[in-house]
Amino acid sequence: MTPPSLAELARIGLSWQPSGQAALRGPLLGLAEECDRAFVRLAALWRAEEERHPAWIAAERLQRAGYLRSFPHQAAFAARLSPAEPDLDAFLAGPVLDRDGVLAGARLAPVSQVLTPAACYHVFSDRLGQELAGPRFVTTRNTCFRHEREYLPLRRLSGFSMREVVCLGTGADTAEFLRLAREALDMFTGLAGLELDWRPATDPFFRPRENPRYLLQRVDPVKHEATYGGDLAIASVNRHHDHFGTGFELTLNGGPAHSACLAFGVERWLFALTDRYGTDPERWPALEPLAAKVCAELGGGPA
Amino acid sequence: MTPPSLAELARIGLSWQPSGQAALRGPLLGLAEECDRAFVRLAALWRAEEERHPAWIAAERLQRAGYLRSFPHQAAFAARLSPAEPDLDAFLAGPVLDRDGVLAGARLAPVSQVLTPAACYHVFSDRLGQELAGPRFVTTRNTCFRHEREYLPLRRLSGFSMREVVCLGTGADTAEFLRLAREALDMFTGLAGLELDWRPATDPFFRPRENPRYLLQRVDPVKHEATYGGDLAIASVNRHHDHFGTGFELTLNGGPAHSACLAFGVERWLFALTDRYGTDPERWPALEPLAAKVCAELGGGPA
Repeated sequence: MTPPSLAELARIGLSWQPSGQAALRGPLLGLAEECDRAFVRLAALWRAEEERHPAWIAAERLQRAGYLRSFPHQAAFAARLSPAEPDLDAFLAGPVLDRDGVLAGARLAPVSQVLTPAACYHVFSDRLGQELAGPRFVTTRNTCFRHEREYLPLRRLSGFSMREVVCLGTGADTAEFLRLAREALDMFTGLAGLELDWRPATDPFFRPRENPRYLLQRVDPVKHEATYGGDLAIASVNRHHDHFGTGFELTLNGGPAHSACLAFGVERWLFALTDRYGTDPERWPALEPLAAKVCAELGGGPA
Repeated sequence: MTPPSLAELARIGLSWQPSGQAALRGPLLGLAEECDRAFVRLAALWRAEEERHPAWIAAERLQRAGYLRSFPHQAAFAARLSPAEPDLDAFLAGPVLDRDGVLAGARLAPVSQVLTPAACYHVFSDRLGQELAGPRFVTTRNTCFRHEREYLPLRRLSGFSMREVVCLGTGADTAEFLRLAREALDMFTGLAGLELDWRPATDPFFRPRENPRYLLQRVDPVKHEATYGGDLAIASVNRHHDHFGTGFELTLNGGPAHSACLAFGVERWLFALTDRYGTDPERWPALEPLAAKVCAELGGGPA
């Protein structure tokens, strides 16, 4: 079976832009919202508290996790024109944009903000220097930005929606969190009729072989992806050890806190579900009730 | 009565960043979601269809509305590092960030995307060149970005949440839309116990007195703001005439379509509501039922 064509996806509400962004309306927007409600329902397994974070984060904060050295090729920044009057004068005196639609004659102000690369960074940064009294579970969704060599409708976007459940705690807390996360996800996708394979994976480091963190990930796999159709990661579980706890000075019991996360790429679920069930919304499974069933089954928080 | 202090707002879930961004959790996040549900309910007056648009828009598209010449001082752009290996080498060989947290030694790639300045631009851009069969009503929410001289918690943000209801149609369609929008908003805020004043306003043009569009707005007020406490615009109604219809080649009955919008600044509603009712969530009005009442009263779409 071949996945739905771009024209078929357009009919159910996808407006795809070759720059790697998608607008959603109609059935496909409804499905995206249903997916997210299901993920939030799964987060209730840990009684995770919902947070909403800004679109960008100070580069200085991200550097506490070494982000810009690990992923300089993927980073997206927020920039503005230099506010100096002569610079704005020069910009306005020119064509503003050149023929390729690129800013012409623009002098930019110094850049200090990075557009959110992954939803969980905010969870750590917003708690900078805090001492935790015990394990904490948080869920948050954000638009995440990554430059890639090529973009593919619903599969690889420059700006996409990521829902995460984040655990902060001891090493044992995070290990138990990840165990339950995998169990819950297996049960959920089983009920939803999606066949997934778990695969150890590494983060997309720049020049990986020169990066000690990549080498470490090869020796001790900390990332496992739930892949659909052999190669599309639609969710992942990630063990951070104390990398973020140390970087963001989060402590627990006198030492750095450990962290872990369960992450969902919302648009990729739209790909998987339309690939599996087609573009007729009548055939799509109702996901939120399935997530509630998983919660009831696994005996977590309020289902 | 003085508005809640930053410390009081922090206790109900505000995490304020001096760069003008806010994280929300707990009661304040709940209130933000309740506000948005109420706005969506009001949008049902026109059976507006929900759309979700990307975080940025091609500068070339925005220029169809003359955005960069009118608001160069407020624009935020999405940028990336130059992907050329020698440029990345030079960046990584340096400190990456200087002491002020600013990118150091970075060469940026050409910039062609603008972070969403107002939610409705996408609604026009996504329909570029379309011929409309009749009036269309759309609602969408997006994070909107504006550089300002100073930022104030919940009142003036560099990135904020804007919900809009957009009407595309004839001049008469948009006039009727705006009439009903003001009536609905008056009734809604009356029920919610918020006192608002309507004021004619102008958009924050760069060097306004040199901009013909500003001068036109002074002669023919196309923007009216619903202000709280004398100076805080928490909603506005905007008549665009055929400005966007012409710029984005949207036609109706053989001529350029007219457009208009009703816009809500979600964080500013949080300010107004906590200023009016304090920080105890028990005292906050349930807004969605009030919006449903307005819909039932004004006899629009499904309430």
